[in-house]
Amino acid sequence: MPKEQGDGRRRVVIEGVRPQIDCGRFSIKRVVGEMVVVEADVFADGHDQVASRLLYWREDDKAVQSSPMVAIGNDRWRGEFPVLKVGKYGYTVEGWVDRFKTWHSDLIKRIDAGQDVQLEMLIGARLLEDVAARASGEDAEILRDSIRKMRDKKDKESTKDAVPDPDLLQIVERYPERTLVTRHETRLSVVVDRELARFSAWYEVFPRSCSPEPGRHGTLRDCEAMLPYIASMGFNVVYLPPIHPIGHKFRKGKNNSVSAEPDDVGSPWAIGSEEGGHTSIHPQLGTFEDFKRFVSAAAGHGLEVALDMAFQCTPDHPYVEQHREWFRERPDGTIQYAENPPKLYQDIYPLDFESAEWHALWLELKETVLFWVKLGVRIFRVDNPHTKPFSFWEWLIQEVKDQDPDVLFLAEAFTRPHVMYRLAKLGFSQSYTYFAWRNNKQELTEYFNELAQTEIQEYFRPNLWPNTPDILPEFLQVGGRPAFMIRFILAATLGASYGIYGPAFELCENAPYQPGSEEYLNSEKYEIKHRDLKSVWSLKEFITRINRTRLDHPALQSNRNLRFHNTDNSSLICYSKATDDLSNIIIVIVNLDSFHVQSGWVELDLASLGLDATHAFQVHDLLGEGRYLWQGPRNYVELAAESLPAHIFHVRRWVRTETDFDYYL
Amino acid sequence: MPKEQGDGRRRVVIEGVRPQIDCGRFSIKRVVGEMVVVEADVFADGHDQVASRLLYWREDDKAVQSSPMVAIGNDRWRGEFPVLKVGKYGYTVEGWVDRFKTWHSDLIKRIDAGQDVQLEMLIGARLLEDVAARASGEDAEILRDSIRKMRDKKDKESTKDAVPDPDLLQIVERYPERTLVTRHETRLSVVVDRELARFSAWYEVFPRSCSPEPGRHGTLRDCEAMLPYIASMGFNVVYLPPIHPIGHKFRKGKNNSVSAEPDDVGSPWAIGSEEGGHTSIHPQLGTFEDFKRFVSAAAGHGLEVALDMAFQCTPDHPYVEQHREWFRERPDGTIQYAENPPKLYQDIYPLDFESAEWHALWLELKETVLFWVKLGVRIFRVDNPHTKPFSFWEWLIQEVKDQDPDVLFLAEAFTRPHVMYRLAKLGFSQSYTYFAWRNNKQELTEYFNELAQTEIQEYFRPNLWPNTPDILPEFLQVGGRPAFMIRFILAATLGASYGIYGPAFELCENAPYQPGSEEYLNSEKYEIKHRDLKSVWSLKEFITRINRTRLDHPALQSNRNLRFHNTDNSSLICYSKATDDLSNIIIVIVNLDSFHVQSGWVELDLASLGLDATHAFQVHDLLGEGRYLWQGPRNYVELAAESLPAHIFHVRRWVRTETDFDYYL
Repeated sequence: MPKEQGDGRRRVVIEGVRPQIDCGRFSIKRVVGEMVVVEADVFADGHDQVASRLLYWREDDKAVQSSPMVAIGNDRWRGEFPVLKVGKYGYTVEGWVDRFKTWHSDLIKRIDAGQDVQLEMLIGARLLEDVAARASGEDAEILRDSIRKMRDKKDKESTKDAVPDPDLLQIVERYPERTLVTRHETRLSVVVDRELARFSAWYEVFPRSCSPEPGRHGTLRDCEAMLPYIASMGFNVVYLPPIHPIGHKFRKGKNNSVSAEPDDVGSPWAIGSEEGGHTSIHPQLGTFEDFKRFVSAAAGHGLEVALDMAFQCTPDHPYVEQHREWFRERPDGTIQYAENPPKLYQDIYPLDFESAEWHALWLELKETVLFWVKLGVRIFRVDNPHTKPFSFWEWLIQEVKDQDPDVLFLAEAFTRPHVMYRLAKLGFSQSYTYFAWRNNKQELTEYFNELAQTEIQEYFRPNLWPNTPDILPEFLQVGGRPAFMIRFILAATLGASYGIYGPAFELCENAPYQPGSEEYLNSEKYEIKHRDLKSVWSLKEFITRINRTRLDHPALQSNRNLRFHNTDNSSLICYSKATDDLSNIIIVIVNLDSFHVQSGWVELDLASLGLDATHAFQVHDLLGEGRYLWQGPRNYVELAAESLPAHIFHVRRWVRTETDFDYYL
Repeated sequence: MPKEQGDGRRRVVIEGVRPQIDCGRFSIKRVVGEMVVVEADVFADGHDQVASRLLYWREDDKAVQSSPMVAIGNDRWRGEFPVLKVGKYGYTVEGWVDRFKTWHSDLIKRIDAGQDVQLEMLIGARLLEDVAARASGEDAEILRDSIRKMRDKKDKESTKDAVPDPDLLQIVERYPERTLVTRHETRLSVVVDRELARFSAWYEVFPRSCSPEPGRHGTLRDCEAMLPYIASMGFNVVYLPPIHPIGHKFRKGKNNSVSAEPDDVGSPWAIGSEEGGHTSIHPQLGTFEDFKRFVSAAAGHGLEVALDMAFQCTPDHPYVEQHREWFRERPDGTIQYAENPPKLYQDIYPLDFESAEWHALWLELKETVLFWVKLGVRIFRVDNPHTKPFSFWEWLIQEVKDQDPDVLFLAEAFTRPHVMYRLAKLGFSQSYTYFAWRNNKQELTEYFNELAQTEIQEYFRPNLWPNTPDILPEFLQVGGRPAFMIRFILAATLGASYGIYGPAFELCENAPYQPGSEEYLNSEKYEIKHRDLKSVWSLKEFITRINRTRLDHPALQSNRNLRFHNTDNSSLICYSKATDDLSNIIIVIVNLDSFHVQSGWVELDLASLGLDATHAFQVHDLLGEGRYLWQGPRNYVELAAESLPAHIFHVRRWVRTETDFDYYL
């Protein structure tokens, strides 16, 4: 008759289990090798001591393991478990009244108060009998010996000899009672990805622009030749816009003009022609053989290939004939093209997810993904996921991960916050963010505190892009080369994952289509580019150095422990990242003003960095190679955007003084 | 195959439904006549318009009603419903894609952009056909007429005549489509109590001290004679400590001494003797006839009787013989008395809720409650609920409310925060708080912000006691009569419910048992008191005035909209309460220093009070009767604790100026 779990004598309750997303509806995310730290309020009525443990299991083998939870004050308990394999884990929390611990802690109080505890010893002996019944071997013997001692009637003084000692307590802990255990009813879960889900540097490149000869359509083989360049800068993901045949009907011309010239190449996102659809390769790019070569060459350079997954069709896409039921028909018998009124996109037919044949559509789209998985693709950058139903993505990602749990999905969800976060919850491994539009100190601080300090960090992995083929932010348009350096430093150090659209980025291309627009002038989306990668303006060396720093310093490989520190100049932003054990600490200070020298005082939260005000520490600038001896929270910095827009300090914590040496008196 | 609700075309998702306690595990609380305001994130993929509604129902008739939800920005929606009867209501949220609204809003954009919309009109006509099929009567006719117009081929200009006008839109709204509706899966609930649960002023009195003759044991009839006094001060609950027979074995003497003198009366909380237990009345207090008279006389004075419910027994309690299985036996065959080691309470046998016969025990305890319910008691003050299992209380309160939903329970849960809040969640109507130990401005502000501004307000109704028979706070011990006034004002205005242990309170009794103790010297718990209620020191008039103010001003009858305002003096605390519609606003400013005059500037958050800086407003002190014309946020106050330790301002919002008159130019 009690509401919960049958027996009215079950006294422990469990509340506030964290992490927990939407009452357990969604999983949290981790990568292999990380710990999952779980907290819960575990308590009972009255004054009895409670005990708690964390249960966890791999979803595919279900063998339940446990680890202890420890009280951290105010009835809150904490435990942790490691996730060692890619896949899904479950976890929950148990609690129970620990009768022996209660008895023992009361006993100490009684003895301290000088009370006679002979009767108490008999009560304790009873409890210990239960423990002994669960024990075996030497433990059981020691327990029974102890019981005999406790039962042995004696005077008040010598009774104390029978009080269980720490050794005995340790034995008891090995055979916990766990009767009338309360288990948190919701089974929580964690999706474990490989490390790349957390720590990645993406480089987006259009293969058709990779030709060394101006004017010629680049190929996958040309792109392959560019891999050493990309790899040398320290990237680990090379992301290709769609490589499928491009439609002809309503093809867009240069600068998105409505009518294309005969030699216009069209947008790679206008997928499908008589040459095929989502499982075909644009003939001018090459063959499947070329593609497989490309994937394997990339791997040879430590690069993974990310493909674009844009679920939309041109009017020429094979689906339009074969599966007219997957498109919406208008009253005049024509197919509804894409719109965002009053904008019209006649070159794109959206798939109709409200079609009566939605089920067949889902299955087909899954097959297209698995098609590329079979060709060795393990990362997909999903175009506009927010314009397809949430339940479709949740299903698709799960289905694909069931086949290959190593597959990762990056959501290009430039949309409203709830939609963006929902997509992350339902399974996307990483997501684009609002970073491109967060420029000043307050904007950056608020946004990254939201991402790193709230529950959002449990399921949303930001991937920061200072530019994309769609977005040339105003800051880059007007700020010159220093603006590119500033935004790159921010992306690569605020985010464990980031990406650039290159070579437009490293060459500091900054001409907008028109004032007020974020589109590139002569956008690569609609034409082939030819560039001089050896330009003296290139940020190649700068990028290489920062990617090297990211590799060398684990603090920069995770978004945990991001913390902002005060500065007295609104153009100077200061933040730190650190490993959990504080063995690696990075302090970044960026001059957000691309035009002027900025100086001011930084006020570090020393405690969060495990530093104290009485010891000097060395900060070593991994960018400019300067070394400074700092002490206390307040320290002066001066940054000239043109030459060195930031410090990326590695903290050497203990600078020794004479007192640290043995021979000091 | 989609994870949620079958059909993959169901596109709307619902998140973040509030209020919602522990994922719907517990109910929120309201009183009759209040509104339940519900918010949720309701959104779909893409750009389509969504619609949402709130569903609600009484648990006892299940007939589902609905009210619309409106978008309040950032995909958040809000709706509300009234709770008109005592009992339990359920609620949840629905959302769906509104195809007609989407079409219509797109249409306007297309027309504004000068596009040809003839085809759009045909699409709209199709949608309207579906609406017409659901409509009848005149509405259906108007709709069909409109469809005809929309289908009528015309040129671009005259097409606009067929665009649905606001009247038509209103008709469409009456027949919403609601296909592929998403319903929030968790059924949420609200427990609706009568108004007294929210707004109550309690007066605790020991009947045995009510005798007009010094030295004689008071009776229920004596206590009845005191009701006019209590009622005249404006209280509406008279709470009696346990009225049951008091045990003899190990009876405590005066000042809690271990051995009682023969004429010592014992503690009312030591329940049970050969004269009976929890369903008996102490013979010296009177008969059941007297009790019924008392309840009915109280009602005649606008007072309800609250009884104490202390589930514990003396060694003489009839249960000890009849139900030895409900007590814990020690190894020597004796019964375990109450302890909180090293403290021993030999006069009390706790009931053993871990007994194998727990089920029978639960049933018996329920019967004792229903016994008093049958005698007209509708309020119980529960002693130490935190020392009995949570599941027992949840079950008991539900069982009793199933019999009589008017019954209210006040939890005397002076315990750790999680335990206190858990008891509130599982059903207690009101709870004691930490108010007695919150004295300075920061403590009060933090604590009452926690109670009034967080989710806690949804289920935890604080009842503020400046004193109890167990607690004479140090502030009262040392601060003289002004301290009692200060603490009374705080209790009666910070809390819609509060109580005092009288007449000790109004007579400003402040002698502690010993320095550092919060026990009263010569505590009424262990002896009969005789007092002069007509003392010139009595706060009777003061209390009467404040209770009158509480009655006259609805702002003080609820804890909603409590807001603290800055002052520049840490001894001055300022807060306001207001009705939702701001028709009644009270601003309280209290001098927390019982010894000195304190003055300073108050800085009101005018916007929260619906006031603006350009209009003067009058504040009328309901305590001192002063009237002041204030303007703008900053205003000066000076309070002398001895004479007037606080202002309780009623705000008259609109002081008229010449421009408010018609004849002003």
